[in-house]
Amino acid sequence: MNISGEAIIGGAHERGTAGSFKAWDPTGRDYLEPSFHMVDADQIDRACRLAGEAFDVFRATTDEQRARFLDTVAEQIMQLGDALIERAMLETGLPRVRLEGERGRTCKQLAMFGELLREGSWRDARLDTPLPERTPPRPDLRYHLIGVGPVAVFAASNFPLAFSVAGGDTASAFAAGCPVVLKAHSSHPGTSELVARAVTRAVQQCELPAGVFSLLTGTGSRIGQALVGHPAIQAVGFTGSRGGGTALMAVAAARKQPIPVYAEMSSINPVCLMPHALEHRAEEIGKGFAASLVLGVGQFCTNPGLVLAIDGPGLATFCKAASSALGATEAAVMLNQNIAESYRKGVDALAGNAAVGTLARLGHDEGRGAAALFRVSADEFLQRHELHEEVFGPASLVVVCRDAAQMRAVVDALEGQLTATLQMDPEDYAEAGALLPLLERKVGRILANGFPTGVEVSTAMVHGGPFPATADGRSTSVGTGAIARFLRPVCYQNLPQELLPEQLRDGNPGGIWRRRDGALTKAH
Amino acid sequence: MNISGEAIIGGAHERGTAGSFKAWDPTGRDYLEPSFHMVDADQIDRACRLAGEAFDVFRATTDEQRARFLDTVAEQIMQLGDALIERAMLETGLPRVRLEGERGRTCKQLAMFGELLREGSWRDARLDTPLPERTPPRPDLRYHLIGVGPVAVFAASNFPLAFSVAGGDTASAFAAGCPVVLKAHSSHPGTSELVARAVTRAVQQCELPAGVFSLLTGTGSRIGQALVGHPAIQAVGFTGSRGGGTALMAVAAARKQPIPVYAEMSSINPVCLMPHALEHRAEEIGKGFAASLVLGVGQFCTNPGLVLAIDGPGLATFCKAASSALGATEAAVMLNQNIAESYRKGVDALAGNAAVGTLARLGHDEGRGAAALFRVSADEFLQRHELHEEVFGPASLVVVCRDAAQMRAVVDALEGQLTATLQMDPEDYAEAGALLPLLERKVGRILANGFPTGVEVSTAMVHGGPFPATADGRSTSVGTGAIARFLRPVCYQNLPQELLPEQLRDGNPGGIWRRRDGALTKAH
Repeated sequence: MNISGEAIIGGAHERGTAGSFKAWDPTGRDYLEPSFHMVDADQIDRACRLAGEAFDVFRATTDEQRARFLDTVAEQIMQLGDALIERAMLETGLPRVRLEGERGRTCKQLAMFGELLREGSWRDARLDTPLPERTPPRPDLRYHLIGVGPVAVFAASNFPLAFSVAGGDTASAFAAGCPVVLKAHSSHPGTSELVARAVTRAVQQCELPAGVFSLLTGTGSRIGQALVGHPAIQAVGFTGSRGGGTALMAVAAARKQPIPVYAEMSSINPVCLMPHALEHRAEEIGKGFAASLVLGVGQFCTNPGLVLAIDGPGLATFCKAASSALGATEAAVMLNQNIAESYRKGVDALAGNAAVGTLARLGHDEGRGAAALFRVSADEFLQRHELHEEVFGPASLVVVCRDAAQMRAVVDALEGQLTATLQMDPEDYAEAGALLPLLERKVGRILANGFPTGVEVSTAMVHGGPFPATADGRSTSVGTGAIARFLRPVCYQNLPQELLPEQLRDGNPGGIWRRRDGALTKAH
Repeated sequence: MNISGEAIIGGAHERGTAGSFKAWDPTGRDYLEPSFHMVDADQIDRACRLAGEAFDVFRATTDEQRARFLDTVAEQIMQLGDALIERAMLETGLPRVRLEGERGRTCKQLAMFGELLREGSWRDARLDTPLPERTPPRPDLRYHLIGVGPVAVFAASNFPLAFSVAGGDTASAFAAGCPVVLKAHSSHPGTSELVARAVTRAVQQCELPAGVFSLLTGTGSRIGQALVGHPAIQAVGFTGSRGGGTALMAVAAARKQPIPVYAEMSSINPVCLMPHALEHRAEEIGKGFAASLVLGVGQFCTNPGLVLAIDGPGLATFCKAASSALGATEAAVMLNQNIAESYRKGVDALAGNAAVGTLARLGHDEGRGAAALFRVSADEFLQRHELHEEVFGPASLVVVCRDAAQMRAVVDALEGQLTATLQMDPEDYAEAGALLPLLERKVGRILANGFPTGVEVSTAMVHGGPFPATADGRSTSVGTGAIARFLRPVCYQNLPQELLPEQLRDGNPGGIWRRRDGALTKAH
């Protein structure tokens, strides 16, 4: 399949005029053809305007129509066939099996939001019965959620399909009835163009306005700043670095009309090894931990970058088992040069930190990430904020605590996280129960006896957490809950039936769950 | 009942050391005894720390316990008896009947959140069935909403009970399990102290940690800035001016950990007079409009400050009827000197604007607000942004449009609003239907054939809207939906039953609505 290097502005393939760049092949260590042409200010502006103009038509589609659109996007992605997988392999260095799995996940996400639309309760429809005899009379009030408006989505480098052009942010925004202006990640521009063509074909096939989707191609921060600052844009979905996310938060807050930013940024995902679990299963836990740490060369937001445990023979066994398992792994190609270079610097900084001891550290060639495991005392960790920062890649830090109270103090000192893990046996439940309230305040997902890598796409998932894990701890970017990010409530008072949205009309024509005077019902 | 002029820091009455001030009697035009002592930095810090320490205990209470606490707050407010009403009358100039009604609304709000807690679906409990045989296996995932943490609430001047110390923001934060540090409004400090004592007694009676509630007393912006900047505070509820709200948004965004701000700020609440309604009912609409405009001396967030209509004899009849009705009203005491002075300046500016004509303007003494009605052409309105700004008080501006297309252009040019009203007859429905999508993008509540003053406290109410109506258009500050502002999701993966929150355990012990694999059910 031919890749043109063009952006797609409201359905039209356009060559950007603001310079060009090429994708990098991290395995072959060379640039890939063709050149990608970076969008200029006019193209960014037109993409946003077209999205603004498309919004009312797009959100006026029925839920069934939008569900079919999401299904069509998935079909069109599958129709790209192996060309998509092959280009993605070249651009990311990720293996075929991972990318095929991720393509499946991407299509599953699209289908999941379609099912959510068909079920209907996502609208949170509410009706208050009028009370004309009351003093003062209560009016007829009806409430539902509508889309916020056009959404700027920033694709992530580490999920070139599932959190990229047609990933979770795009799928949830489309489901909410919001057009998407997508900033492609410069790390996989060809993959992005192919998927964007699939989305564009779905837009055409479903006879939606062309402004429902645009793809902006380029590098650097210029495009993102212009996009988030554009008056037509009403919300932002982002997955990436803390620096990138907080920069977009600042742009969004400084707008004449500030808008919400959902940036998933930075997390070191503490794993708490409870004493009895360590006593009974230190070696097994160490092996499992090592496998989680190196999965995907550590390039997951939920990578276990921090281990908390009380000093003792159990911890020593864990460290030995983990180090030994890591020693048997091999350095592997990272997603791009920036990530590999940042990882190398992060590991060098840990190794060079006077308070930190090295438990395991593999050698590696340029562009590759090698596992590394360090240890530090809780006393030092509590004093050195630099040790709380994410090192994106297969590195982790064991924080050795004096006792349970100090472990709680360390949890209390952490910033917001996506996940926390408790490795525990039944004898540990009392102490784990004491940790839980602290963990609930810090993280979006708490796991028992597993590892945080692997994020289920489902109804009950939370892939979110207090700042800086995300910009907005009230949200999740994975699972059906992600749609809530792009919705806001509107109430209609005494509006005639003819003018009410279908889901709020008398008789409940869609047969959906609604709240009548507060009580959930499918009744008329 | 004796008023001490003291703050309440986690249950303890304390005299602030940062200066003092007195309440103003806007009717008697004199200062009231006693002096109120302003809190110092240490007191603000302690109130926030105590709130942070109280959070885990408070949120671990059962929903029934928190519901009883809210009921107890209402009981304690009623037990203040007439002393509360009398002090509020003195401090606000509002009449007895209004304040007694507002006390009833305040207690009703507290009870409403209690019922919401007892019903249980506010937790949004979700359970995904594990699929151990799948590749990869799906874990056991359970999800619910928890409180965000201590909330800083800023009391409003215009609802000295219903949006003040124990008003909607406080009630919804308590319901969510969040301690409240309340910044009293300096316009009714004695009323605030009395209600704060009622809340404090309820905290004691329900044996909750004292840090669940503190009252900060003072004037100016110092206290608010310190409060919103305090690391223990996790969200902000505010009702007041655009300047005040945006200043707090800036503080919240600049924190090391940014936090959400729910500021209800500024709205001119357009009333669209559709042609056939004007043709048939111009006089009746004009009278109704005038009554809504002067209600509470125009000191409502939903006051109809803008009228949009197409030029013609119907509009002339409306203007005449409204002007005549306004001419029969009398200037009345406004809430405080700042509001009266700002109103006077705002009306003077409108009257002095070269593009604006005066339809009605009453004379008034100092401290009083007199109704005023102005007109301007849509062409001028579209060019002069100063005419889009709120004038808080009984003044409104009629924007005369050439045709329906220009009326749509005016709606399109408006900033975010709390409400929009359509005065329409059935023959207007087609054109109203064309306006609806524009209005939905701009406002939180759309009314037909009524007036926006009067905000029902119920399940389907939205008292919110896009910026600058509020800081966060995804929220409502009135009705049960207000609790969502202070909640965030947490997911538990494979957590043992013993450690799960009750509402997520097997067997559904509370018998509440939950989502099992996406489907709502009360089943086990």
